[in-house]
Amino acid sequence: MAVYTEVPDDELARFIERYTIGTLVSCKGIAEGVENTNYILETSENRFILTLYEKRVDARDLPFFLGLLDHLTKRGIACPSPIHDRGGAALQTLAGRPAALFEFLKGISVRRPQPAHCGALGEALARLHLATSDFAPRRANALSLEGWRALYATCEARADTIQPGLSDLITGELTLLGMRWPSGLPEGVIHADLFPDNVLFLGPELSGLIDFYFACNDIIAYDVAVCLNAWCFEADGAFNVTKGRALLTRYQAVRPLSGTEIAALPVLARGAALRFLLTRLYDLLNHDPAAFVKPKDPLEYVSKLRFHQRVQSPADYGAAP
Amino acid sequence: MAVYTEVPDDELARFIERYTIGTLVSCKGIAEGVENTNYILETSENRFILTLYEKRVDARDLPFFLGLLDHLTKRGIACPSPIHDRGGAALQTLAGRPAALFEFLKGISVRRPQPAHCGALGEALARLHLATSDFAPRRANALSLEGWRALYATCEARADTIQPGLSDLITGELTLLGMRWPSGLPEGVIHADLFPDNVLFLGPELSGLIDFYFACNDIIAYDVAVCLNAWCFEADGAFNVTKGRALLTRYQAVRPLSGTEIAALPVLARGAALRFLLTRLYDLLNHDPAAFVKPKDPLEYVSKLRFHQRVQSPADYGAAP
Repeated sequence: MAVYTEVPDDELARFIERYTIGTLVSCKGIAEGVENTNYILETSENRFILTLYEKRVDARDLPFFLGLLDHLTKRGIACPSPIHDRGGAALQTLAGRPAALFEFLKGISVRRPQPAHCGALGEALARLHLATSDFAPRRANALSLEGWRALYATCEARADTIQPGLSDLITGELTLLGMRWPSGLPEGVIHADLFPDNVLFLGPELSGLIDFYFACNDIIAYDVAVCLNAWCFEADGAFNVTKGRALLTRYQAVRPLSGTEIAALPVLARGAALRFLLTRLYDLLNHDPAAFVKPKDPLEYVSKLRFHQRVQSPADYGAAP
Repeated sequence: MAVYTEVPDDELARFIERYTIGTLVSCKGIAEGVENTNYILETSENRFILTLYEKRVDARDLPFFLGLLDHLTKRGIACPSPIHDRGGAALQTLAGRPAALFEFLKGISVRRPQPAHCGALGEALARLHLATSDFAPRRANALSLEGWRALYATCEARADTIQPGLSDLITGELTLLGMRWPSGLPEGVIHADLFPDNVLFLGPELSGLIDFYFACNDIIAYDVAVCLNAWCFEADGAFNVTKGRALLTRYQAVRPLSGTEIAALPVLARGAALRFLLTRLYDLLNHDPAAFVKPKDPLEYVSKLRFHQRVQSPADYGAAP
């Protein structure tokens, strides 16, 4: 959410010379991305996003992320296309950090998505899933079932300080998901964090997907379940089935979900809610008051998890019966 | 240095409609200005800076600042020109804050100014001083001699915790400046904070002056003294007389300093060094670790003040004998 690493003007000018992108016109640190330092960089030819990777991103994952964005660009997915230097490299070093330059994407994040936004998101998500079917590199999901257990082990003792009974809720859910987590569903590259913050719209049109730094290989329908959690609840905690139906219908128009995938949506949605509950709980319990970022509320995901626990069938999300 | 106030996308869209500037294309919070929230806002027609004024700026001063920027724009000074809405107003309300929209200025701040940059700065400063000679509104300098005394009263008890002897240094300097502070020198509107951060260059050319939120009426040559402090010292603490000469020569080519103004430079430079020493001391002693901004080092200005105390004549700054 802020500039962590400053780039001196002279070092920046030398960096620009590695590329064939014209001369430097402007460079402003932007409050985007909680993990990295980002600048809007303008040259005589175009505008770009310059990203410097801070400690929270494992530098060993960067070839996967940049390779994925190259691959998606070739497949016509609107995402931050890596710019390659004169020698063909996308991954650079700048101000002592791993760094990369990306195409600038126009568009605005929508704070209160309407059904039409949810539909456009569903279609873009399905296109993303199809586009990565031939992307060979793999990255494990550090935030799947095993990762949740490990994360929770560091929070368990203090969970009830956030809300009484939270510890029992999470322990019970981890046990149940351990028994019911599906196997054999189609797997592939998922975005894994496709919240409204990470989707740009130009008027009603979806203009880009951003922030792929949780992308990994996992159950494809789990990505749909993440989006049902992130896009289809109202501010008062109610699930909006019209939004869910819009998301699922336009997703399926591009990539039809199998009967097994649809049947798994309730348990996948519980897993997705638990994942964001746990990371938000961890961030809140370990919040550094000197940090730039205000921690998000884990209780929003307690409420969502309790909704999913009550779900009777995938039709409750708007899936066609 | 960060986004303090978030503007929801729907509220932003309605804000844009007050103007004749096209439709919204992009809006990113930028890490610029420690007092305000700033966005780079792009429409179908142009790019702008959107500023929301936070608590540290007194809303009663905004008509002065916006009027000054309108005036400077008419006089051809490259500065953030306020954009006026369909009704002619520059000052707005957005997300519950006073807000204004400005022309976007190209350019990069120079971290290590060279003599040519100092010369260009001197010329631009002189043009600024001439351009405001017929600007009628007035704003007192809250950070002149009386303001320094008041500020120091809140820091005095803890000054020596930052550096032993600091209390004696400041007390002595306040006493001396109280006796020697010049009167009768030409007064006018000064920028009062024209550090390299607040000056943009496109290659070797100065492309804009920004951040006028300390602008006020005071001794014009004091603004020159602020710039000698801010632009002409090396990182090792040495004053670079070549840079001072470049600044003063090109300033005087546009607005010649009188003999009295030149003779006052050493005492004005001491005052300017004390002003930044005191505000940095205050900010360090009152630093909120949850704030976005890393406090700047007051000791840099202790070193500069000690240099000015040793100065024998204005020639030590590069003034022609």
